[in-house]
Amino acid sequence: MRAFADKLLEQVRRTRTPVIVGLDPRVNRMPTWVMDAPHAKTLDHARNAIVDFHRAILSCLGNMVSAVKLQIAFYEQYGVPGLEAFRETIHLAKAEGLLVIVDAKRNDIDSTALAYANAFLGQAVLPEGVCEVFDVDAITVSPFLGSDSLEPFVDVALEYGKGLFILVKTSNPGSVDVQDQQINGSEDSVSELLARMVNRLAERGRGSSGYSSIGAVVGATFPEQAHRMRALMPHSIFLVPGYGAQGASAEDSVAGFDRRGLGGVVNASRSLTYVSEDRELPRDEFLSRFQSRVRAMSAAVNAHLPEDWWD
Amino acid sequence: MRAFADKLLEQVRRTRTPVIVGLDPRVNRMPTWVMDAPHAKTLDHARNAIVDFHRAILSCLGNMVSAVKLQIAFYEQYGVPGLEAFRETIHLAKAEGLLVIVDAKRNDIDSTALAYANAFLGQAVLPEGVCEVFDVDAITVSPFLGSDSLEPFVDVALEYGKGLFILVKTSNPGSVDVQDQQINGSEDSVSELLARMVNRLAERGRGSSGYSSIGAVVGATFPEQAHRMRALMPHSIFLVPGYGAQGASAEDSVAGFDRRGLGGVVNASRSLTYVSEDRELPRDEFLSRFQSRVRAMSAAVNAHLPEDWWD
Repeated sequence: MRAFADKLLEQVRRTRTPVIVGLDPRVNRMPTWVMDAPHAKTLDHARNAIVDFHRAILSCLGNMVSAVKLQIAFYEQYGVPGLEAFRETIHLAKAEGLLVIVDAKRNDIDSTALAYANAFLGQAVLPEGVCEVFDVDAITVSPFLGSDSLEPFVDVALEYGKGLFILVKTSNPGSVDVQDQQINGSEDSVSELLARMVNRLAERGRGSSGYSSIGAVVGATFPEQAHRMRALMPHSIFLVPGYGAQGASAEDSVAGFDRRGLGGVVNASRSLTYVSEDRELPRDEFLSRFQSRVRAMSAAVNAHLPEDWWD
Repeated sequence: MRAFADKLLEQVRRTRTPVIVGLDPRVNRMPTWVMDAPHAKTLDHARNAIVDFHRAILSCLGNMVSAVKLQIAFYEQYGVPGLEAFRETIHLAKAEGLLVIVDAKRNDIDSTALAYANAFLGQAVLPEGVCEVFDVDAITVSPFLGSDSLEPFVDVALEYGKGLFILVKTSNPGSVDVQDQQINGSEDSVSELLARMVNRLAERGRGSSGYSSIGAVVGATFPEQAHRMRALMPHSIFLVPGYGAQGASAEDSVAGFDRRGLGGVVNASRSLTYVSEDRELPRDEFLSRFQSRVRAMSAAVNAHLPEDWWD
């Protein structure tokens, strides 16, 4: 079975961009051509709107980027119908050949962590059968509960050729509250301690590319720390949030990349998928602007990577 | 609007037990009288089994305890059908007059945190209407992303008369990895730092009982720390996991309670709801043993509280 890290890096090279697109649905901001969006008043309308919007977005995204990132909170906010739309969005993205990363920041202890891991990466085990559940390529997980809470995720991810991105340094201002605390009797901050933990776990998941399927979330908004994080986690792919709406620049976004210009994917969501305040923008114009934004972000990021890094 | 803290403490006093029951469905362990459980091979079977099992459990639980705790991972593991069962279990529990706490350990940054808060505690906002989504009484949230990630949850909880339990010290062995680290230049561990943060947030949510709707998760498996946590968070109700299957005793479970014998609820899940390895146990016998276990746990916990604490 191919390692997630190898699949992701191959797609990044093929599409010649480390940019990935976040699909974070907000029905209130969708253009009026989206079925059921302008007059939505039930959760079922929300489901229909999300699926219709993502079908359009995804139909012009195949071959442009390696992966999409679904922030599950934006589906969960619409309840069970929202999660039906989540399931359908996964199907649509896979049909376009895109890898699917779910930003879920899940975690819990032992058998509960395993339940989450099975839901997203593995299979449900029933008395007379097993079934795939959401079956995505990778998820984000929180390390707050410690290493024993991460191990079930690592086990399931590696068994099924999937990946993890463990939160190490998030992109929000409040990430300093816990993550930047310096630990007594050590040179490390909490984030640095976690980076060492991720690096140990990552040893198990190294693919033929040298990169591991056990990656880390390292926000673009703290580029100096990203540089340090690369030194502590040389084999982990970084999922980099914070570009665009959160204020990080293209240069900031690649601060944690390796010298060859590899080792990370840079996500943007709102700044790519909501291209205009004008909700009346016609469908073709909307999708054309969306594609232009993805290309522009890719060019901006690539300008800070070595020439021909994809070779 | 009544504060969640007041509603919970009133129910605890009325039922004369701080014990709450965890509903963590595992279809493979359900008794054979549960519809669709013995031969389940699809996620739809899992949904039917969960609803059938919980309908039976809940029908004999009203007036015995104040609340149930649903660990959402055990529903999510069965995908969208599992979450349909989650929604239905919430309805069934409310119909029995029970408060519903969801153990979700969710969190994320700003607008994403708000999406989660709306899903569980508030309402979905759509272009032409608002709708309740899961609409439970309280959820658990993770503080790993810092105080700015907690504020949207506090805002929504207090607006809707709901509650939060913020993770401060979890019950698993690996909780030492991050939570017990001592912070440089401070007397505090990470958990103690978080306790101070929770205490600040809890000021906003104090009800007429004096207790706040902004509570904390403090595991029963570290009773000495629970005592310290009470000193740091005098107004927060503690949600206490770890009793039973995780090894904590009744005495350990109330280490963080106040002198009057209030200030916490003690959860047990597997040790109450899976009463026998014998899956052929008839329904009446099963439910009778379930009720006995809840009563026995209540008696064991009450034995370590002041006499007539409920007055």
